[in-house]
Amino acid sequence: MPLSNITDPADLPPFAVSLGDPAGIGPEIVAKSWVMREARGLPPFFAVGDAASLRAVWLGPIAMIGTPQEAAEAFGSALPCLQIAEAGEIVPGTPGIDGARTALQALEAAVGLARSGSAAGIVTAPVGKEQLYGVGFAHPGQTEFVAERCGVAPHNAVMMLAGPSLKVVPITIHIPLAEVPAALTVDLIRARALTTAKGLQRNFGIARPRLVVAGLNPHAGEGGALGREEIEIIAPAVESLRQEGLDIRGPFAADGLFHARARESYDAALCMYHDQALIPLKTLHFDDGVNMTLGLPIVRTSPDHGTAFGIAGTDSANPGAMMAALKMAAEAARARLAHDG
Amino acid sequence: MPLSNITDPADLPPFAVSLGDPAGIGPEIVAKSWVMREARGLPPFFAVGDAASLRAVWLGPIAMIGTPQEAAEAFGSALPCLQIAEAGEIVPGTPGIDGARTALQALEAAVGLARSGSAAGIVTAPVGKEQLYGVGFAHPGQTEFVAERCGVAPHNAVMMLAGPSLKVVPITIHIPLAEVPAALTVDLIRARALTTAKGLQRNFGIARPRLVVAGLNPHAGEGGALGREEIEIIAPAVESLRQEGLDIRGPFAADGLFHARARESYDAALCMYHDQALIPLKTLHFDDGVNMTLGLPIVRTSPDHGTAFGIAGTDSANPGAMMAALKMAAEAARARLAHDG
Repeated sequence: MPLSNITDPADLPPFAVSLGDPAGIGPEIVAKSWVMREARGLPPFFAVGDAASLRAVWLGPIAMIGTPQEAAEAFGSALPCLQIAEAGEIVPGTPGIDGARTALQALEAAVGLARSGSAAGIVTAPVGKEQLYGVGFAHPGQTEFVAERCGVAPHNAVMMLAGPSLKVVPITIHIPLAEVPAALTVDLIRARALTTAKGLQRNFGIARPRLVVAGLNPHAGEGGALGREEIEIIAPAVESLRQEGLDIRGPFAADGLFHARARESYDAALCMYHDQALIPLKTLHFDDGVNMTLGLPIVRTSPDHGTAFGIAGTDSANPGAMMAALKMAAEAARARLAHDG
Repeated sequence: MPLSNITDPADLPPFAVSLGDPAGIGPEIVAKSWVMREARGLPPFFAVGDAASLRAVWLGPIAMIGTPQEAAEAFGSALPCLQIAEAGEIVPGTPGIDGARTALQALEAAVGLARSGSAAGIVTAPVGKEQLYGVGFAHPGQTEFVAERCGVAPHNAVMMLAGPSLKVVPITIHIPLAEVPAALTVDLIRARALTTAKGLQRNFGIARPRLVVAGLNPHAGEGGALGREEIEIIAPAVESLRQEGLDIRGPFAADGLFHARARESYDAALCMYHDQALIPLKTLHFDDGVNMTLGLPIVRTSPDHGTAFGIAGTDSANPGAMMAALKMAAEAARARLAHDG
């Protein structure tokens, strides 16, 4: 039945996990997560991709399934895999065109299953962007591709990075640092903040999310002496949101926002640029950081790391972030039932 | 005797601690540190400033001294204080012109005592910059003032922030973020790196310091796709230093440099701007971060926080960073004996 008709969390279908680049660590961390499914209380899930990429790095049981419905049954005794393409010869650590094509097809299939309600959401293993560009992929990353396939404008799909003690949202992301000041606008900050607040309500069940906003400059500009973006752009955006009823504060000096006591005072921090958000997140949660896309009709999470081609096939990949991504997806799906239902 | 004639650490004179703004938390954290002197193994020290600022917030014993020599004797039973001026009426939390003048005189006196070898080094409590500007102070901060009084050009005095598990050096400091890309040059990065390496040898006894360098842009520029400063400025600086024999690596993506395993691989991280250095440092060591100035003839440390006028006089200031600054100063003085002697 469609997700929108489900009211009991026990009725949620399994999650679709796209295996990412078959030559990366995706297949390994998905298999390792399945092994830990009971110890870590992971939700039922199934792999989407080429089962050969799992077999290349793992000797455990795989159940080939034809539909997501079969996954729930098989999950207890084998890792269910929905085969959507063959990646050709798979050499862990050596990515190729066929693998990139398979990764893209797996991603697309997973999104479709989640949109139709056959999967409770998607968890995406890492892809190699360079390889994807080679097969005509024209998006900056998986997030934008998923957004488009969900009918959401890319700028309305918001990347949130989350660990057990910190959630951050970068306002600008993959642009040179020199371009950040000019990219900041009142409208952009407002849009990101509103999507973040709604996303925290819907995916985490936080009725009234507490947001803080970092300044751009040292000491948040020190009253204008070290930059005026706080005065001219960030503070007006925060003030307008507060007047509309959001629980939002700032801009604050970024270096004082991320120690333990400070983190207790908010649910998410809005940061002005990539490293301002990612430095504290990865300093604290390098092995269990999760990337969640807010603003989508479906639940989508991914581990906050790359393909790690350098260690693929060596059995040394840490599945911590993948397991955290699975757990966060499950919590989000349950929170959505309570929020939307 | 002059410091240069001392070879036994037991012969080191006490440290001079300037009390900073008398209306800030400086006097309180200095007094609290004295109380903890044995429990924390702090080196002998004496306060420099107006004893009335100590009495305004503390009921413990104070020994008025005329020379640093008297401090060592008094230190066991009372907090030694070298009175250098009277700050007028002192109201904790309400800074004034007289207090700023006293703070400046205390700083100057402390530097003089360290330069002459009467003090083993200086530890500086926080000052209010706005107040100092009111009495004609023309330096960006205490660091530049101390450098000038030591005959060192301000750009050769390097600010290092240090906690128990991380040392960082910002290449640019108190400038707007928008000005950072243009401020980065090969020469500047080289100068900071060389001073840092020498400072780690001299003050920490690290024979061959391992340095890492952060990139400026997300993912350290991703091969030029997200900015070219790594390719055009940072990498050439690192390469030239490596060819001269420095143990230096980078540029690396900044967000992957500060988790526990990464921190084990280096002694100090060179960062391109204020928040890139201060965010990880304060995320990890908000209560015990120390600011040490490298490149000076004298040892100088300070707690990595401000005057906190808002809580001055409420007995709630945490002396952790002041105690850490005292301990680091003592270690540096001992390391210098071994290194220089």
